[in-house]
Amino acid sequence: MRHILIIGIGAGNPEHITIQAINALNRADVLFIPTKGATKTELAEVRREICARYLTRSNSRTVEFAVPVRSTEGRSYIESVDDWHASIAATYEALLKDELADGQTGAFLVWGDPMLYDSTIRIVERVKAQGRITFDFDVIPGITSLQALCASHRIPLNLVGKPVEITTGRRLAESFPHKSETAVVMLDGEQAFRKIEDPDAEIYWGAYLGTPDEIVISGRLAEVKDEVLKAREAARERMGWIMDIYLLRKGADFDE
Amino acid sequence: MRHILIIGIGAGNPEHITIQAINALNRADVLFIPTKGATKTELAEVRREICARYLTRSNSRTVEFAVPVRSTEGRSYIESVDDWHASIAATYEALLKDELADGQTGAFLVWGDPMLYDSTIRIVERVKAQGRITFDFDVIPGITSLQALCASHRIPLNLVGKPVEITTGRRLAESFPHKSETAVVMLDGEQAFRKIEDPDAEIYWGAYLGTPDEIVISGRLAEVKDEVLKAREAARERMGWIMDIYLLRKGADFDE
Repeated sequence: MRHILIIGIGAGNPEHITIQAINALNRADVLFIPTKGATKTELAEVRREICARYLTRSNSRTVEFAVPVRSTEGRSYIESVDDWHASIAATYEALLKDELADGQTGAFLVWGDPMLYDSTIRIVERVKAQGRITFDFDVIPGITSLQALCASHRIPLNLVGKPVEITTGRRLAESFPHKSETAVVMLDGEQAFRKIEDPDAEIYWGAYLGTPDEIVISGRLAEVKDEVLKAREAARERMGWIMDIYLLRKGADFDE
Repeated sequence: MRHILIIGIGAGNPEHITIQAINALNRADVLFIPTKGATKTELAEVRREICARYLTRSNSRTVEFAVPVRSTEGRSYIESVDDWHASIAATYEALLKDELADGQTGAFLVWGDPMLYDSTIRIVERVKAQGRITFDFDVIPGITSLQALCASHRIPLNLVGKPVEITTGRRLAESFPHKSETAVVMLDGEQAFRKIEDPDAEIYWGAYLGTPDEIVISGRLAEVKDEVLKAREAARERMGWIMDIYLLRKGADFDE
């Protein structure tokens, strides 16, 4: 029986890592490291630093693998993601088969927490369901960018006793501000906050959270929207990539 | 200038703590520890273990304080919480004034993450706004019970590309299943899942997450509802207290 550990390593600050994750890293015989192209080199650097700082066993191996690219042409969003997952599942299956001996433990290192807008768990479940290779797996939680965002802005996520919606840029218009008073947008290729016109909405935005390049901006959305868009575009040009997240809020504690 | 650290210490497993939180614990001259009565002794034990295991400086002090009790009589929910926060703010202000010298650092240890259904941040802001004592503060994120729940069940929080609502038992009926496909209930004194009748709803429930007493149950809600209620009641009687959380889900990945 092979064993897989899906380990959340935090949102970009090497100190986000938990003791549980450090112990899990050190249980792994093989660390599977995705290579995602040359652009996000700062993130690759943080991951290397995490391994260098916290790995205490010297007999584990690192195996790099190329993550298949998602094809969107001629497909719906759902089809493209489903095909993409199938292709990653084939990659994972080959890794487990070729790189991990029976009885050995392999680890996938995941940014943030494997539970939040990450597909490692469902892809590992897909490999398992195919039934061609036997293994079990465990999940180790990690600090997400959502938590790093709230910590940097020093704000609670929720208003007192009120709900929070975590959503994507594509779906933001379905929810904020008519359906939810607090919405967090995790994946947003289109800066969906641009289209929110509510004069009472506030935004808490952050990019490269937890890293030395971290930028945070907050304020009334109508007043800081342009500042966020400009800072985002300038950073994206300077760094060659961007990873950002934001929280939109309307209302206050105790205003029921 | 005094300095305050609001430190998330995880959901019950001492290994949930991050390196950032351990470093913060060791920056504090004074650790403020709430005493919440004798019932949750296991939690107090975990906190003691965290301090014993990770505190490396020997010259910090621990100051225990009684958390004011919330009065609900003759008040709306909002009024009762507002009064309660005012009373805790007075306690905090006295602690900062009496126990912390100018230039010193004090730490509040918070279960889970200070951002999620916890009021330490907003109470500290309230003390600051009163303006009678000058200090600044930082927030250190921690693993929440929500993350521990998903890790133990080995599930992603969200369906592919879909939103998630985090809410309370009081508000669950407003959202699931007609408004959201995934709802997480963090604070629930009434087991609001009992009233959900949808035949397709699934539940992922957990109590005492991260501790040796952890219990998890999952399945189709209609089929496991009674099992959860029985397990919950039996555990509450055995332990003298309960802390639980659950996720309700309807639908599947890729079913748009």
